[in-house]
Amino acid sequence: VLDFWFDFGSNYSYLSVMRIEQAAAMGGVQVRWKPFLLGPVFASMGWPTSPFVLQKEKGTYVWQDMARQCRKQGIGWRQPRAFPRSAVLALRVALVGAEQPWMARYCRRMMSLNFAEDRDIDALPVVEAVLHELALPAAEILAHAHSHPIKLELRRQTEAAQALGIFGAPMFFVGPDMYWGNDRLDDALAACSEVLS
Amino acid sequence: VLDFWFDFGSNYSYLSVMRIEQAAAMGGVQVRWKPFLLGPVFASMGWPTSPFVLQKEKGTYVWQDMARQCRKQGIGWRQPRAFPRSAVLALRVALVGAEQPWMARYCRRMMSLNFAEDRDIDALPVVEAVLHELALPAAEILAHAHSHPIKLELRRQTEAAQALGIFGAPMFFVGPDMYWGNDRLDDALAACSEVLS
Repeated sequence: VLDFWFDFGSNYSYLSVMRIEQAAAMGGVQVRWKPFLLGPVFASMGWPTSPFVLQKEKGTYVWQDMARQCRKQGIGWRQPRAFPRSAVLALRVALVGAEQPWMARYCRRMMSLNFAEDRDIDALPVVEAVLHELALPAAEILAHAHSHPIKLELRRQTEAAQALGIFGAPMFFVGPDMYWGNDRLDDALAACSEVLS
Repeated sequence: VLDFWFDFGSNYSYLSVMRIEQAAAMGGVQVRWKPFLLGPVFASMGWPTSPFVLQKEKGTYVWQDMARQCRKQGIGWRQPRAFPRSAVLALRVALVGAEQPWMARYCRRMMSLNFAEDRDIDALPVVEAVLHELALPAAEILAHAHSHPIKLELRRQTEAAQALGIFGAPMFFVGPDMYWGNDRLDDALAACSEVLS
């Protein structure tokens, strides 16, 4: 089992979301999706926003790197006008779907909207349209996403991330072992497969 | 041509130093070695030391990651008791050697001393011993390293790094294109080979 911690606003999480289902299936690994809010994690480190915004030079680099990485991975890329994009509703829906068969497809769609189509993924009509597109019971899922238990769960999941020492996204766990960034996804999957064999 | 910016105190530069000569040769790429001081670059971003020290969670992670990456790469690893280690003299010698045939060997030896043997690499006897070990004219090289022009050159090279927007190490450049981190060395080499073909 691989735990996959991510936020829809995180650009490097985009790279992982787009390939993790297939990569994990090839290695016989089960993915546990762990959506959380990266904002409060940054805030607890004293950062009012993403380090890619706070550090100008790193930010400039990251958009060049993203363009190259997306081309290499064969996925779309358009630098979002808003970054990091808030995605509270989208993440609550992800919590509803975390163990559902539609989770990976839903996440890929939300990530593509943010990072390949530059859309406001936190807007209710956008989330609703995605659910319809995936032929899911949108009204029911949205009602659940807006419920108190799910709101609480997103807060708790974010606190759990902090308790685990998570300082960025994407973050992977194989048991207690932490792997940071899309560049470590393959190592994390390989570590899972070793445990299996 | 690949420009390779590094500091002996940088742990991820260690991973690149240990493999860049061979990897570049395989791709028919020439490496231009660019030793610089990472400390002033961090200082200009408002950081009194490495972010791996300033951010406790990230620091904890980095040493786990280093152990795994070194094992994967088949190189030694011992977490240095002093981090980031100052290496001003060692870097001045690297400036003397930057275009010499012994440069890659010298850098691998200094890096191994820091990250596999936990030695104080900035101490004169240590640098001297390495030069002797490599059968180089130690007295002559050290006299050159201690000269005013070389001291000035290290300062200038560090300013040049900042002017290029360098915010960490290792950093690679293929023409104007920046590649950050050991994880991007292969992409940078591939980009060089594309330019060549």
